[in-house]
Amino acid sequence: MSTVETRTYRIEQLREFTQRVLQHFGVPAPDSETASDVLAAADLRAIDSHGVARLHTYFEMLSLGRINPRPNVHIVRETASTATVDGDNGLGLVVAPRANSIAMDKAEQFGSGWVSVCNSNHYGIASYYVLQALKRDLIGWSMTNSTKLVAPLWGSERMLGTNPIAIAFPGEREPAIVIDLATPAVAYGKIEIAKRRGEPIPVGWAIDKLGAATTDPQAMIDGGALLPLGSDRERGGHKGYALGMMVDVLCAVLSGANWGPFTPPFALRQEIPKRSVGKGIGHFFGALRIDGFIDPAEFKRQIDDVVRTFRATKPAPGTTGPLIPGDPEREAEVERSVHGVPLVLPVISDLRDIAKQTGIPFD
Amino acid sequence: MSTVETRTYRIEQLREFTQRVLQHFGVPAPDSETASDVLAAADLRAIDSHGVARLHTYFEMLSLGRINPRPNVHIVRETASTATVDGDNGLGLVVAPRANSIAMDKAEQFGSGWVSVCNSNHYGIASYYVLQALKRDLIGWSMTNSTKLVAPLWGSERMLGTNPIAIAFPGEREPAIVIDLATPAVAYGKIEIAKRRGEPIPVGWAIDKLGAATTDPQAMIDGGALLPLGSDRERGGHKGYALGMMVDVLCAVLSGANWGPFTPPFALRQEIPKRSVGKGIGHFFGALRIDGFIDPAEFKRQIDDVVRTFRATKPAPGTTGPLIPGDPEREAEVERSVHGVPLVLPVISDLRDIAKQTGIPFD
Repeated sequence: MSTVETRTYRIEQLREFTQRVLQHFGVPAPDSETASDVLAAADLRAIDSHGVARLHTYFEMLSLGRINPRPNVHIVRETASTATVDGDNGLGLVVAPRANSIAMDKAEQFGSGWVSVCNSNHYGIASYYVLQALKRDLIGWSMTNSTKLVAPLWGSERMLGTNPIAIAFPGEREPAIVIDLATPAVAYGKIEIAKRRGEPIPVGWAIDKLGAATTDPQAMIDGGALLPLGSDRERGGHKGYALGMMVDVLCAVLSGANWGPFTPPFALRQEIPKRSVGKGIGHFFGALRIDGFIDPAEFKRQIDDVVRTFRATKPAPGTTGPLIPGDPEREAEVERSVHGVPLVLPVISDLRDIAKQTGIPFD
Repeated sequence: MSTVETRTYRIEQLREFTQRVLQHFGVPAPDSETASDVLAAADLRAIDSHGVARLHTYFEMLSLGRINPRPNVHIVRETASTATVDGDNGLGLVVAPRANSIAMDKAEQFGSGWVSVCNSNHYGIASYYVLQALKRDLIGWSMTNSTKLVAPLWGSERMLGTNPIAIAFPGEREPAIVIDLATPAVAYGKIEIAKRRGEPIPVGWAIDKLGAATTDPQAMIDGGALLPLGSDRERGGHKGYALGMMVDVLCAVLSGANWGPFTPPFALRQEIPKRSVGKGIGHFFGALRIDGFIDPAEFKRQIDDVVRTFRATKPAPGTTGPLIPGDPEREAEVERSVHGVPLVLPVISDLRDIAKQTGIPFD
């Protein structure tokens, strides 16, 4: 593994800079705080691609008036336990926390709450929303669709986003089980890392623009696609494809957002979809009251037992045994809360560019 | 591919035989009809391992009084949109349809319904329940846990069942998207088929009893385990493991059933778990009212568009292009409804054994 040069920043500094940049474009102070929370969660949990590394793109979109800084986020349809929310083209980092709160409010009142969201933009890490639910003693679900990057099994073009699914279950003495998984075999970021290092990628990650399996990261980048979780027919690639489609329908068809290959891009330089089939991108949030099913104390004791039982699994040769979903992110959060967030030079340079253009200091 | 000798039966004959066998053990007539519906759905949809091929096991369990033929299926806790149901150790084929109905009733009244079930037994195919939801114009979810067969990533022993997830979305003119996927890379049945044929299995399906990757089906059967969807760390095996754990918690921890390695076996000859952590096995059902989010006619038109758009994906070389989830099962159902269900000789022999022991004719 090659070492990458980084410089470490306190999370408070990154949060404050994010807030000031968003406020510079007219985002109200409370919304800017929420948005900086979402990005900070990614930076602390070492999901580096989804933290301040994305601030420059938000900055560009806001500069060009492509995102509404003061959206009127509103319910367009609802029942006791469901709703569709229109995000009014606001920042996903602002729209999604509000929609997630609506789902949680409904859960507290009616046992569960399910909110599909249209007319939104990228919402950060899926797990942020389920961690919010844990604070209210709820089981939270979170999904989003996104720009096309993934081929359906037996297809040779990008048709689905990386469409993640997150859900979390609280323990009593053990930490919560926090599941957050994207539905392709691998994140796009890993293709870029392999390319930078001049290394081949494993079979099962990607196809080239003709639909053939490839180990060349550049062949995926040049009009190829990621493969769904499971990779090929033999190993269950149809399952990853089906999960990606499930997320797409719940987030986008159910809310009236754009789905599949028509989901608008996150960044300015990405291809514009051929047609529009709805409004913005979509998310889907769920919340379940634990005491709507079982005594919460009993549930948490059982989750502790689950965590300990799975940690005690006989390890596979050459490994330290199974992790519990959320382990790596939680450990990173402890470490980075104390010692700061390492940023790579291109990200620092992006943040300095924002500083230069807005006059908000960053160094 | 070797040909396997089969004989074809009309579905009505299989349904009637199932009903009479169950009634023979005191299962009430309406429950026996429901149970035969669930098995018939599997046989028609060519999920052969889950149809009448399992009747002999139900027969054995009922003969030994291990399953309650007249369960008092009841709600133990509920809110407007959630409930936990105790199946009173009834047939899963009877308990699960009732619990699913409760979820659907709640959805009709409060927008969504979520039911976790304990003290149940194997429930057939996961998709049966979401097809029932389609009949009531609802989006249905269905999950179940089951006897351990799958290793968590980096583990070397069986800790999770094949824990399937099903969900379906109705179209207007196009058929519904019906997703039904188990969370390991491959079904156990495929290991058995490879063994019978004396063929190796692909890398990524299984490990042996020491936790090492294996291509020998017998090595998996002799104390090895299936690998989760994604197979290894590089290709996302941690994601399949997390999905399996998600299903386990929703079905079993939330309801008070047995989870993980403690989930009781389906068949008599399987290993009894080391300890009991709850009652029976667990299921989880969800139902969402489409008009709780969007105009259902608009939703169905969009689903048609999704189906057509994904069918029109540029095909990968050597394929006819992506399928829509549920395509193969729907085509089988059309074919088998007309031409009958082919059963292999060992299954026919099992059914004849039941006939002999009960005096109910089958030939």
